Amino acid sequence: MTETGNKTDKDNSIGVVETQYYTYAGPGKEHNLESGEKLGPITLAYETYGKLNKEKTNAILALHALSGDAHAAGVHRDQDNVGWWDDMIGPGKAFDTNRYFVICSNVIGGCKGSTGPSSINPVTGKPYALDFPFITIADMVHAQRHLIDFLGIDKLLCVTGGSMGGMQVLQWVASYPERVRSAIPIATALKHSPQQIAFNEVVRQSIMADPAWREGNYYEYGQPEKGLAVARMIGHITFMSDQSMEEKFSRRLKTGRFSFGFDADFEVEGYLHYRGANFVKRFDANSYLYITKAIDYFDLSGGRLIPGGKAIDTRFLIISFKSDWLYPSYQSQEIVRLLKRKRVDATYCELSTTYGHDAFLIEVEEQTTLIKHFLDKTFNGYLVVSDHGI
Amino acid sequence: MTETGNKTDKDNSIGVVETQYYTYAGPGKEHNLESGEKLGPITLAYETYGKLNKEKTNAILALHALSGDAHAAGVHRDQDNVGWWDDMIGPGKAFDTNRYFVICSNVIGGCKGSTGPSSINPVTGKPYALDFPFITIADMVHAQRHLIDFLGIDKLLCVTGGSMGGMQVLQWVASYPERVRSAIPIATALKHSPQQIAFNEVVRQSIMADPAWREGNYYEYGQPEKGLAVARMIGHITFMSDQSMEEKFSRRLKTGRFSFGFDADFEVEGYLHYRGANFVKRFDANSYLYITKAIDYFDLSGGRLIPGGKAIDTRFLIISFKSDWLYPSYQSQEIVRLLKRKRVDATYCELSTTYGHDAFLIEVEEQTTLIKHFLDKTFNGYLVVSDHGI
Repeated sequence: MTETGNKTDKDNSIGVVETQYYTYAGPGKEHNLESGEKLGPITLAYETYGKLNKEKTNAILALHALSGDAHAAGVHRDQDNVGWWDDMIGPGKAFDTNRYFVICSNVIGGCKGSTGPSSINPVTGKPYALDFPFITIADMVHAQRHLIDFLGIDKLLCVTGGSMGGMQVLQWVASYPERVRSAIPIATALKHSPQQIAFNEVVRQSIMADPAWREGNYYEYGQPEKGLAVARMIGHITFMSDQSMEEKFSRRLKTGRFSFGFDADFEVEGYLHYRGANFVKRFDANSYLYITKAIDYFDLSGGRLIPGGKAIDTRFLIISFKSDWLYPSYQSQEIVRLLKRKRVDATYCELSTTYGHDAFLIEVEEQTTLIKHFLDKTFNGYLVVSDHGI
Repeated sequence: MTETGNKTDKDNSIGVVETQYYTYAGPGKEHNLESGEKLGPITLAYETYGKLNKEKTNAILALHALSGDAHAAGVHRDQDNVGWWDDMIGPGKAFDTNRYFVICSNVIGGCKGSTGPSSINPVTGKPYALDFPFITIADMVHAQRHLIDFLGIDKLLCVTGGSMGGMQVLQWVASYPERVRSAIPIATALKHSPQQIAFNEVVRQSIMADPAWREGNYYEYGQPEKGLAVARMIGHITFMSDQSMEEKFSRRLKTGRFSFGFDADFEVEGYLHYRGANFVKRFDANSYLYITKAIDYFDLSGGRLIPGGKAIDTRFLIISFKSDWLYPSYQSQEIVRLLKRKRVDATYCELSTTYGHDAFLIEVEEQTTLIKHFLDKTFNGYLVVSDHGI
């Protein structure tokens, strides 16, 4: 998740919202993880927007990216912290809360209210740190399924998300196809390429190179600030495009002249410093390690997205962005090709924005048009047979 | 500079070579730097290959990239450290040492025998560290001009280099056009884009975030190993392409299975670790800071490459690589457009390799064809009037 810095448009915002918490997998009922380890109890932070209809057929699950949280829309009471997808979720928006019931669930492994490495380990009474078990995208989705069960929803109208959110979308289809009427994976991939793994590994190395990381046991002392800031700066380069950086910063100098030293001379350097410093205040370093590794392990290529001869009736809308070089369009096209081979109803659209990977958060208008239309047709019960090849 | 890891083909290698040193700007004759500071004495490490002809018209100056050195071809006695451009410089090669006299000069600010931050400051008797004055690409080229004067060469047949080497090529033309008969800038740019600056700044932040950097005063204690290794890992991602990483590593695992931990699982991670650890042994952290900053400051756009109505008779061959996303082809095309507007003889070729930025070191065959032909025509005295638009 990256931050758009957008202000809420008060007239069509969902308004004040509250984060809720669901806890399960208590003593003796621990969740079995893909690694073979167990985790419990598990708390999931989540928010909901709009109302679930009587038939429970209007529920949409929105899933966040790497550093996101459950707060996707609206604001919290007495705060101005607009949700990360507020431009997309609300009355009349792409995910129209006048019509749909939107749920956003934070992932396990994170640090935004759900159980993760910074949570208290019930065995020791201290933060888990690296004793937290290794988690995968399938584990995250397994936990979300418990939440959806708890909310009494049998079949989700749609599962959607960008970047790692899109991986969770694909995992929902792989794990629980019968519970997903439609899926909108955005700016994502069936698996990380070696280049994507390489960026994540450098991010991890940057955190672990900081002596303040203390092999993960930093909770009494404070975050490994410098390593985590550098890690996030690397991320921010990959979230933007060459062109969007040129448009936003060009070679403008912070003070109008060269310092002939090692301070930030260029505005783009100041931007990276700001983003790095800001991130340290809001995100746990160990969570960054766990979640990036979960992303790198994720692989639904080959027969893993739709195993065997399984017929699934989930409809897909796949969106990518031309200037996104972190999750390039060819990776979305691989998803489309795989679905077509399995005769799954899939519509693909590449949007020609300059925003790079950040576009899934910023490029609102075109995404809204596509998504509104797609959801409308899905909600009206597959009235149109197929919509291949927009 | 990246490492090709190629073995010398003994049959057409230049063989055993020796690094030489030229020192000037002694007490009272210090070099005036662009920053307004002074530097002296200055030592330049350099090597030469082939023989200077009687007329002194066959000299080619080869300039290295960020972490390169004077050792461009052959091997040193009793060692097997092949020069960084050995595939391109030697008998019968692109820069044919049977015909031409090739000089490779290390840059000031570096740590490979030329004066830089790890050199002894004559005032204190200790390494300069951050007391080393700030240097620019123009300062590097100014020092090289002193070396060329010392070698008694009035006009260079050609100045060539890739990446930062290409920036020095452009700076030679901007500073001393009358001394450059032809120029071959490869995989380079008139100026860094904000994305390129951003990568360099993250590299610097990674070094400076390491407490072992000690504000630059680490020489008694050893390098800031962890920060410098992370910095270099970032570099190596940008030197390769998405496709070349896929071809070289794909998602292959080091041990055939996931570790469910934070060790290197994927081969690409192991590669980065190796490159990072190796770099720490061979390159000074402060030099990396100084040189990346010199690159970021470099800007010969607008009227700076060829000032005013100045007519220059330097011929250009500009080469870029399709898969190079660190120095994308549009940046080479900007050089070409600028030269054409000034009616300078310029030939441009984009080679369609998958190697990314590393191609200037690896993609030997096609570069050789282009360069041999271009040098041949240049050396034969402009027999052909123009060669626009290959």
